[in-house]
Amino acid sequence: MMSSNITRKISKSVVTGKEYVIPAILDDQAGIDAFIGLHPSKKVVVVQGLGFVGSVMGLVVANALTEEYAVIGVDLPVEGSYWKIRSINEGFFPVIASDPKIGEYYQNALQKKNYYATYDAYAYSKADIVVVDINLDVKKLSSGNKGLEDYQVDLTAFRKAIKAIGDNCKEDILVLVETTVPPGTSQKVIKPLLEECLNKRGLSTLKIKVAHSYERVMPGPTYIDSIQNFYRVFAGTDEKSADAAEHFLRTVIRTDEYPLTRLGNTNATEMAKVLENSFRAMNIAFMVEWSRFAEEAGVDIYEVVNAIRMRPTHKNIMLPGLGVGGYCLTKDPLLASWGRMNLFGSEERLHQSEKGVHINDNMPLYAFTYLQTQYKGSLKGKQVLLLGVSYLNDVGDTRFTPVEGFYEQLKNAGCEITLHDPHVTYWEEKDVWVNQLLEEILDQSYDFIIITTGHKNYRNNAALIAKLNQQAPCFIYDTIGVLTNEEIRSLSVKHTVKVIGRGDL
Amino acid sequence: MMSSNITRKISKSVVTGKEYVIPAILDDQAGIDAFIGLHPSKKVVVVQGLGFVGSVMGLVVANALTEEYAVIGVDLPVEGSYWKIRSINEGFFPVIASDPKIGEYYQNALQKKNYYATYDAYAYSKADIVVVDINLDVKKLSSGNKGLEDYQVDLTAFRKAIKAIGDNCKEDILVLVETTVPPGTSQKVIKPLLEECLNKRGLSTLKIKVAHSYERVMPGPTYIDSIQNFYRVFAGTDEKSADAAEHFLRTVIRTDEYPLTRLGNTNATEMAKVLENSFRAMNIAFMVEWSRFAEEAGVDIYEVVNAIRMRPTHKNIMLPGLGVGGYCLTKDPLLASWGRMNLFGSEERLHQSEKGVHINDNMPLYAFTYLQTQYKGSLKGKQVLLLGVSYLNDVGDTRFTPVEGFYEQLKNAGCEITLHDPHVTYWEEKDVWVNQLLEEILDQSYDFIIITTGHKNYRNNAALIAKLNQQAPCFIYDTIGVLTNEEIRSLSVKHTVKVIGRGDL
Repeated sequence: MMSSNITRKISKSVVTGKEYVIPAILDDQAGIDAFIGLHPSKKVVVVQGLGFVGSVMGLVVANALTEEYAVIGVDLPVEGSYWKIRSINEGFFPVIASDPKIGEYYQNALQKKNYYATYDAYAYSKADIVVVDINLDVKKLSSGNKGLEDYQVDLTAFRKAIKAIGDNCKEDILVLVETTVPPGTSQKVIKPLLEECLNKRGLSTLKIKVAHSYERVMPGPTYIDSIQNFYRVFAGTDEKSADAAEHFLRTVIRTDEYPLTRLGNTNATEMAKVLENSFRAMNIAFMVEWSRFAEEAGVDIYEVVNAIRMRPTHKNIMLPGLGVGGYCLTKDPLLASWGRMNLFGSEERLHQSEKGVHINDNMPLYAFTYLQTQYKGSLKGKQVLLLGVSYLNDVGDTRFTPVEGFYEQLKNAGCEITLHDPHVTYWEEKDVWVNQLLEEILDQSYDFIIITTGHKNYRNNAALIAKLNQQAPCFIYDTIGVLTNEEIRSLSVKHTVKVIGRGDL
Repeated sequence: MMSSNITRKISKSVVTGKEYVIPAILDDQAGIDAFIGLHPSKKVVVVQGLGFVGSVMGLVVANALTEEYAVIGVDLPVEGSYWKIRSINEGFFPVIASDPKIGEYYQNALQKKNYYATYDAYAYSKADIVVVDINLDVKKLSSGNKGLEDYQVDLTAFRKAIKAIGDNCKEDILVLVETTVPPGTSQKVIKPLLEECLNKRGLSTLKIKVAHSYERVMPGPTYIDSIQNFYRVFAGTDEKSADAAEHFLRTVIRTDEYPLTRLGNTNATEMAKVLENSFRAMNIAFMVEWSRFAEEAGVDIYEVVNAIRMRPTHKNIMLPGLGVGGYCLTKDPLLASWGRMNLFGSEERLHQSEKGVHINDNMPLYAFTYLQTQYKGSLKGKQVLLLGVSYLNDVGDTRFTPVEGFYEQLKNAGCEITLHDPHVTYWEEKDVWVNQLLEEILDQSYDFIIITTGHKNYRNNAALIAKLNQQAPCFIYDTIGVLTNEEIRSLSVKHTVKVIGRGDL
């Protein structure tokens, strides 16, 4: 159906390393028909987008609790995702995760043969339900120590994906959007666009159902549970849409233990998601100026925050650090503010939430400036070891990691950088390899050893401290308060030690 | 000792209504000596300040767990506090509280005769320990929809109180500061001032001990427990001060169940307290612009926040409302910022925290503007009933209540205002009486009935809804989301109903 000639390209699996040639003729109608033929009486669920959320959502639907579905994952036939399609069909799940349930669920799906993947929009014509799990990114035009006046939300790709559904789907389809979108998107963008497509195809627009339910997926040891065993919030663009979404969610989510929350309209669910993440981003941004104050006042901010966390109402007060990374907190407040202005015509931004992102975005630059203030000399030609590349403790996720901004500053200053991260072998965004062997890498000598991610491996690690003491005099810089005061006292006096947020030690 | 002539003045108890003449000659040396004579072998603890914290802290020390103390409460012989001194000595505790332990502890103290009160600084000369529980206020010079450029922290009265200790105390006294102060105050203001006093008196400054430990007192049903059965954070200006403070706190606080947290220095404990409250103030301020967005988007922000609170990490996300009141959240972020600039010479304010106070301070004005936008007509001569005067649900505390700003706006617009609050009989700051009988007061008819505090009595109250429906057509305005959607649906269509943060209903 979707056949066209494109330049011959390779898509390489980041899991197995295997290379796949993206076909010149894009037609998978036969594959889809064959798959549907295996499951003649099952409802067909198409998951649009095979990223961190969609690929695993597909698994969960293929392992639904109270109904048997035929699941088709759809992604684009491009370098970054074509390999995922092939991978799913060849028996290799395209996500590495520490959650053993991933393997278990995938094996079940392979046995039942009920999870197929394709690039062909023909799949939507077979769908009873489409779950939308594609990305919607924010483009930040400014970088470094600048404001956010110039961020852009471009819906072009997103609209194209929705149009692919509308151009192919049945008229009574349920489109369940899980993507984090600007509030207002389901009602003001997605539904009208689908109706427009149906109209053009001469179909009725009365039966189409559009709902929004946001995921709270946590890649890591509880990956599956973060979908299947967790609270869900949902809403429909009308009653029938909400009812249909509720019926579907009850078949895949353990709603007896984690009751569903149905909100009044999709603006509310869309807002809830970005508000949730903005709250967290703000709580981090809030701590930034307090960390600076602590440094000025000779106060150990980690000690202070731990004392405050004794209060049940203050348990989630954040610690300072190198910065904020990941796919959500760095953009969701901006999606919200953009939606407020562009979909509801408000003249007001979400000032505080935007400011929060701005403050967080500048944290890596501060960490670099602090280093310069403390070290004073030139950084040109210095050997620097960075401990940690991912944005979050104990996972291998490098998306929007704050280490990147810090790394760039060091690079620009002429440093020679060695990277270590127990969870990252290859840093995709920078196209560099990352070492995993901590003790081995410490046999070389460095001018600077800088802790940039709070991995468990760097905490209470006596071997690490011993190795540090074997180094020639060097500058040890802890940007996230991983080293305890005791460990710092046990470090050789030949080293200089600085910790962000701890004042003078 | 402290004898001088002052104008003859009356101090009236807000608890019993009894009036006391403030004596012309201020000398209570005999009274203090007689009290000390009753307790020859006990350590003497003087509590400076008999407000919400000090008066009850005195009770807790008089009922210490592992040691018998003789407790003297000291306050100033002025209209607002002289009655408290007399009250304590006459057998009437000067605080009304729903906590039954208050009465119990006070009866114990009366039996043991170990809690005396005075205005005479001679008391400090007998003290082994002085606990400082006086106020330190922030003066906000601007009001209404303005910035905070003009707030002032004036330490004059605070320094005078500390000087009264230094001018009288033994050279090895422990001064334990519980007042919320700008970070740096114990080390940079209190200790040098006490040393200066000792120097002038020809005494050694080597033995004096200054420590800071902040209270987390919650007037209300768990008043005593919020002191005795709660986590405490403390620090000393040096090791011996910290040790002495720890020894004292262990005798009065249930530290087996609520372990003490000792921080590195008093800057840290002082910062912890204001950071704690700034965190809460910020979390409220953060919600303000989201409430506005919800109104624009036709979203019920209460529904959204309740959905978000299902997440354990987001339980403390706040709800919008009329504004922020009370003694702490309205000023602590400013104390912190002031301390940063004035005691540590930083060129940076705590911008976000100041901004948070500013946003919160403007909430009552917004509530009024929203009313004007929704009602449109003139408010002149309108009958208005305000339900709630205190700043917090289910307590009778009117200090810095946001109802005040809203009330002032209504007054200025020419409204005739009737007040109801089940917990407030007399609104001290405004010098007006408050009605307690909800159903009775609703027999009169009003143009506007406005819910301004989220008291239990206003929630799920079928009688209230029935009474509202008996009213002639009126404008019902819920500024804090007390009315449920069901209740709103059950309200007669003759009324106009508006709820802040709920969009169009």
